Amino acid sequence: MIDIGCTLLGGTGYGAREFLRLAIQHPHIKVTQIVSSSASGKEIGSIHEELQGLISIRCTDQVDFSLLSPYKHRFVILALPHGESLSFYANHKEEIESADIHIIDLSGDFRIKDLDVRASHYGKLPEKLSSEDYNKFIYGLSETNRENIKKATHIANPGCYPTAAILALHPLTKNFKVQSVIIDGKSGSSGAGRTPSQNFHHPELNSNAFAYKILEHRHEPEIMEHTHVHKNQNTFMFVPHVIPLSRGMMVTAYAQLSEDVPEKEIKQAFQEQYKDSLFVRIKDTAPNIRHVAGSNFCDIHIKTRNSQVVVTSCIDNLIKGMTGQAIQNINIISGRNESDGLKTPGLGLS
Amino acid sequence: MIDIGCTLLGGTGYGAREFLRLAIQHPHIKVTQIVSSSASGKEIGSIHEELQGLISIRCTDQVDFSLLSPYKHRFVILALPHGESLSFYANHKEEIESADIHIIDLSGDFRIKDLDVRASHYGKLPEKLSSEDYNKFIYGLSETNRENIKKATHIANPGCYPTAAILALHPLTKNFKVQSVIIDGKSGSSGAGRTPSQNFHHPELNSNAFAYKILEHRHEPEIMEHTHVHKNQNTFMFVPHVIPLSRGMMVTAYAQLSEDVPEKEIKQAFQEQYKDSLFVRIKDTAPNIRHVAGSNFCDIHIKTRNSQVVVTSCIDNLIKGMTGQAIQNINIISGRNESDGLKTPGLGLS
Amino acid sequence: MIDIGCTLLGGTGYGAREFLRLAIQHPHIKVTQIVSSSASGKEIGSIHEELQGLISIRCTDQVDFSLLSPYKHRFVILALPHGESLSFYANHKEEIESADIHIIDLSGDFRIKDLDVRASHYGKLPEKLSSEDYNKFIYGLSETNRENIKKATHIANPGCYPTAAILALHPLTKNFKVQSVIIDGKSGSSGAGRTPSQNFHHPELNSNAFAYKILEHRHEPEIMEHTHVHKNQNTFMFVPHVIPLSRGMMVTAYAQLSEDVPEKEIKQAFQEQYKDSLFVRIKDTAPNIRHVAGSNFCDIHIKTRNSQVVVTSCIDNLIKGMTGQAIQNINIISGRNESDGLKTPGLGLS
Amino acid sequence: MIDIGCTLLGGTGYGAREFLRLAIQHPHIKVTQIVSSSASGKEIGSIHEELQGLISIRCTDQVDFSLLSPYKHRFVILALPHGESLSFYANHKEEIESADIHIIDLSGDFRIKDLDVRASHYGKLPEKLSSEDYNKFIYGLSETNRENIKKATHIANPGCYPTAAILALHPLTKNFKVQSVIIDGKSGSSGAGRTPSQNFHHPELNSNAFAYKILEHRHEPEIMEHTHVHKNQNTFMFVPHVIPLSRGMMVTAYAQLSEDVPEKEIKQAFQEQYKDSLFVRIKDTAPNIRHVAGSNFCDIHIKTRNSQVVVTSCIDNLIKGMTGQAIQNINIISGRNESDGLKTPGLGLS
Repeated sequence: MIDIGCTLLGGTGYGAREFLRLAIQHPHIKVTQIVSSSASGKEIGSIHEELQGLISIRCTDQVDFSLLSPYKHRFVILALPHGESLSFYANHKEEIESADIHIIDLSGDFRIKDLDVRASHYGKLPEKLSSEDYNKFIYGLSETNRENIKKATHIANPGCYPTAAILALHPLTKNFKVQSVIIDGKSGSSGAGRTPSQNFHHPELNSNAFAYKILEHRHEPEIMEHTHVHKNQNTFMFVPHVIPLSRGMMVTAYAQLSEDVPEKEIKQAFQEQYKDSLFVRIKDTAPNIRHVAGSNFCDIHIKTRNSQVVVTSCIDNLIKGMTGQAIQNINIISGRNESDGLKTPGLGLS
Repeated sequence: MIDIGCTLLGGTGYGAREFLRLAIQHPHIKVTQIVSSSASGKEIGSIHEELQGLISIRCTDQVDFSLLSPYKHRFVILALPHGESLSFYANHKEEIESADIHIIDLSGDFRIKDLDVRASHYGKLPEKLSSEDYNKFIYGLSETNRENIKKATHIANPGCYPTAAILALHPLTKNFKVQSVIIDGKSGSSGAGRTPSQNFHHPELNSNAFAYKILEHRHEPEIMEHTHVHKNQNTFMFVPHVIPLSRGMMVTAYAQLSEDVPEKEIKQAFQEQYKDSLFVRIKDTAPNIRHVAGSNFCDIHIKTRNSQVVVTSCIDNLIKGMTGQAIQNINIISGRNESDGLKTPGLGLS
Repeated sequence: MIDIGCTLLGGTGYGAREFLRLAIQHPHIKVTQIVSSSASGKEIGSIHEELQGLISIRCTDQVDFSLLSPYKHRFVILALPHGESLSFYANHKEEIESADIHIIDLSGDFRIKDLDVRASHYGKLPEKLSSEDYNKFIYGLSETNRENIKKATHIANPGCYPTAAILALHPLTKNFKVQSVIIDGKSGSSGAGRTPSQNFHHPELNSNAFAYKILEHRHEPEIMEHTHVHKNQNTFMFVPHVIPLSRGMMVTAYAQLSEDVPEKEIKQAFQEQYKDSLFVRIKDTAPNIRHVAGSNFCDIHIKTRNSQVVVTSCIDNLIKGMTGQAIQNINIISGRNESDGLKTPGLGLS
Repeated sequence: MIDIGCTLLGGTGYGAREFLRLAIQHPHIKVTQIVSSSASGKEIGSIHEELQGLISIRCTDQVDFSLLSPYKHRFVILALPHGESLSFYANHKEEIESADIHIIDLSGDFRIKDLDVRASHYGKLPEKLSSEDYNKFIYGLSETNRENIKKATHIANPGCYPTAAILALHPLTKNFKVQSVIIDGKSGSSGAGRTPSQNFHHPELNSNAFAYKILEHRHEPEIMEHTHVHKNQNTFMFVPHVIPLSRGMMVTAYAQLSEDVPEKEIKQAFQEQYKDSLFVRIKDTAPNIRHVAGSNFCDIHIKTRNSQVVVTSCIDNLIKGMTGQAIQNINIISGRNESDGLKTPGLGLS
């Protein structure tokens, strides 16, 4: 039974593409409309050719919420550039809320709750948006925030690096005294989005790798806020890197505890935290991107030496790190099985 | 309703891995047993780590057909090295046939029907296998042989290059006078299978490419037989190449017709042939491997100049070129919708 | 002794970059000036960072031929977009010729001698350029045209696909009766040049491949003219493909002879043709791009079956297919050893 | 003038291959002999095909030091598996030393000077090797140990990760108070050597990445010893990763200083340390592997925030991280210009 209707805003980017890939495979979701000013009038399959034959929707440039009315569960998915989600919500909030529509925002616009921190990375909130409105958006990482998501109407869907990093750190920071944390992130190139640029020009990225936004990436405060590591930035560093693959991401988290803890005890904390979370797998061997690429899984491995802990985690940045998490949130909010439409194994060979 | 039971023979190779990936996502299939002498006693998720959390089966070393009894539709999938399927069938045929079990063989063992041609590429049939038995195996390319598959009990599942090549050539050779055909194949490295070797050692294949088995690959006679191009090998050449990707394959077919034909007329022949075939898409733009990788689609493009025709086609060698086709055949034989469990779009980014 | 002076026009593209990489390693070449309107005033090492520490030249926007005066051998290297070389030459020819300066043009502007064919692919010659002037440009493929290059003052440096294709075909078309030829080209992404674009955006080209300009690429007439295959296009097809690597190229040439010829005889024709050519290696095993990438070598392999011949050849598209060939021509014209500055083995691992 | 003779032990691995690639391009080096038991009797070009046409030496299985006699400077290069260098030296030391031959060992056998630390990572020294003999081997990182190398007769050539890490850390640990250091290493697959294995099988490493030997890699004590960071392992972590490229390596070093230091001051310390070192480039932009791959350069970038410092460095693991450093040491010991034969720019496109 298809009882979940989704309106998708932003049709041309990788987020939209990937959301549609997953929605097509979901037994209970119907995408009712794709709104895109730049692609208005075009068949979605002419933009994302891999979708041809499986979905046929012509993009429009005006949102029409009435198309959601027939569905029991109603969602608007915002796959817009950073900044535009905020404007969209500010302009449509009465309409959305009166029609009992849920919002899932894939951008960073609503993620950081400390408004001072937010201001320095994303700017101040616009006047027409109260902090009360802003705070309706619940951080949508289901494995650490499931109970709040169940009751949520507005979701700030997590960033890709934060997803991999928070899942790697949360059981640690919740249960042990952590003195300092360093996050080394390695992402495939799809994280840069669809617009071509010099650094992501294939001849220059093939067999290449580089660090970027060193100590300046705005996923750093997002990770800090949602792991409650420290208010004190001095004990926290995050550096992202691009590595020559398209889909997938790895985070290596180096934590210094204030005392020695047996590895077994730390693993137990992880197993306890994720015991009801199908999509997090605690592994005895170091995770590989190929085991999670194409899937909604997050593979995690823990290694300790005295008071040192190294946690590595892998996700598909476009799925668990974005659209798969969005589907998971839709499932939770709709009272569906959390894994509906998401039981796809990793590619293994990618 | 799960009414299709499958026994899988050969658990450790890429064919088995990929079959399981697809079977997990199929709403009507249950894998009852995985038989593997080398992995006997092991959990399948310890061999193919990306399957963990979605399937739990311990491999055995003895086949037990009684496990299939509860299912309305019963299948044995042979994901064995070339040569072993033949032996297995010869040793178990009474058992299989008396239990009303269908066989899908992923190897090349039963594909070539001309026994002289077969002999020179795969050797002679063993004594205990009659040519009558051999001929029970129907060539399982659904887009060109659907009616025969519906009634089949034994399927010789097509090779990967033949799938891409036959789909690119069949409407041409069926409808027009073709003087000569050249097939240039380009495959990702997964086609070489799971056993490491020097040519497929990552440091040596990354950013590399090479031709192999030039004019000597046994997919050549398979393509020739199933396109009815020519008995005369002199007008047919096939050269496969390895290119530096893992999953996916492209074929460029160069055909010389005996007279000029308008491009439109040729395209119509393709559209007519595949009008009921969801998984073949005739495209106006040159196909990309990324549009089909991870899916069961075959994208085809036709370009002509006078009496020259160039057809390019792309598939995922492990899916449409192997296990996806097997699932499609299972669906057809079971009377299911041909696309059940296969409506996954290509990865787009891979 | 440094007695060869070079002025480089066009500093920002991959051609310029690669020419500088080779010039730096040449014991007798000094680059006196880099002219680039878009990079005027910039250090070349700020544009091509890998050159830092080895060369320091600030780009200018006006050419100054007097800087070449101190050198015994004087060259202008045109690493300009197609079309601009023609204009530059038309505007500066008296100046260049009076100063006894040689021109090496890396573009396609002067390559096709049949002016009707040229017109349909590159347009008509401008009025101020006579066909006599145009014909001063000698096709600079040293292995097939060495004697003419020795005496040349103006060089039309060959295209990358033509280099790989002509070296693979020339001994065949010169010595045997060839009925038809099909060229399947596979190139790394650097052939697309430095400007980012959607098809060459890393997330979309990684693990991808596609054909382009099917039967419409302007290297086709260049190959035909310089192999003397046929005036009749109907027996010739060329389709280029992009494969997911940056540097390197392979050509697979399928020739149908008018009669059976022993493989040995054909190999001898190749060995004879290239016996004085260090950079062409006739191999018993299929060539690999990794054996030639980073070098000026062209590896060639021949396989026959009755009257069918398959020749595969590999080059580095940026070196033997462009700038290495330019250096080779500079060496020949200057009376140097043809291999000076070019004795770099292929990378092996790339 | 060729006055440097080299005997190469171990002919089939990537170390030998790469040493030969560089030796061929060096104006003063002659390789007199290649000793390899497994390849004895074979032409070196049949093993490393990219060398064909540039060098012709038949491998032998017995070393003959007399072949070095004609040369003023005599070197034995040990490109042997870890452990074998130790045995070779123990068995031949009188012979080598009496013939005034220098040794460059590419393995880890002689690198760690603290014999207790060495014992736990490489085992105890064999009885016939005194610690005095062992200590003749000077750590051959020219940028930090040049004066000692000038006088050395025996060189322990640095490991690849240590080269990138020590160059990134040395000016920091020498000049500032460093509280803790974390090294995140990312290497191309060639670091795994030439023998195929499952983790380095192309279908499984393409578009993949993984961590390995987490907190257990024996490059960790090598880095610690030669940066004098700490005796106390608790403030040091090193985790290496494999990323999907063949040639090249990056290290991201996270240092916590005991107090805030201006970025400018730290950069100056780096510039001062490397002011006479052509091959170390201090950059204002984050380094890219493609800028150093194929070259002997190490590119370094420094970023600070209060008392935090992030240093990223890139090298070609096979050149600056192995054989290029060996050539550099040969040049220094022979009194040649340190950069002879090594002035090759990075590939830029690889």
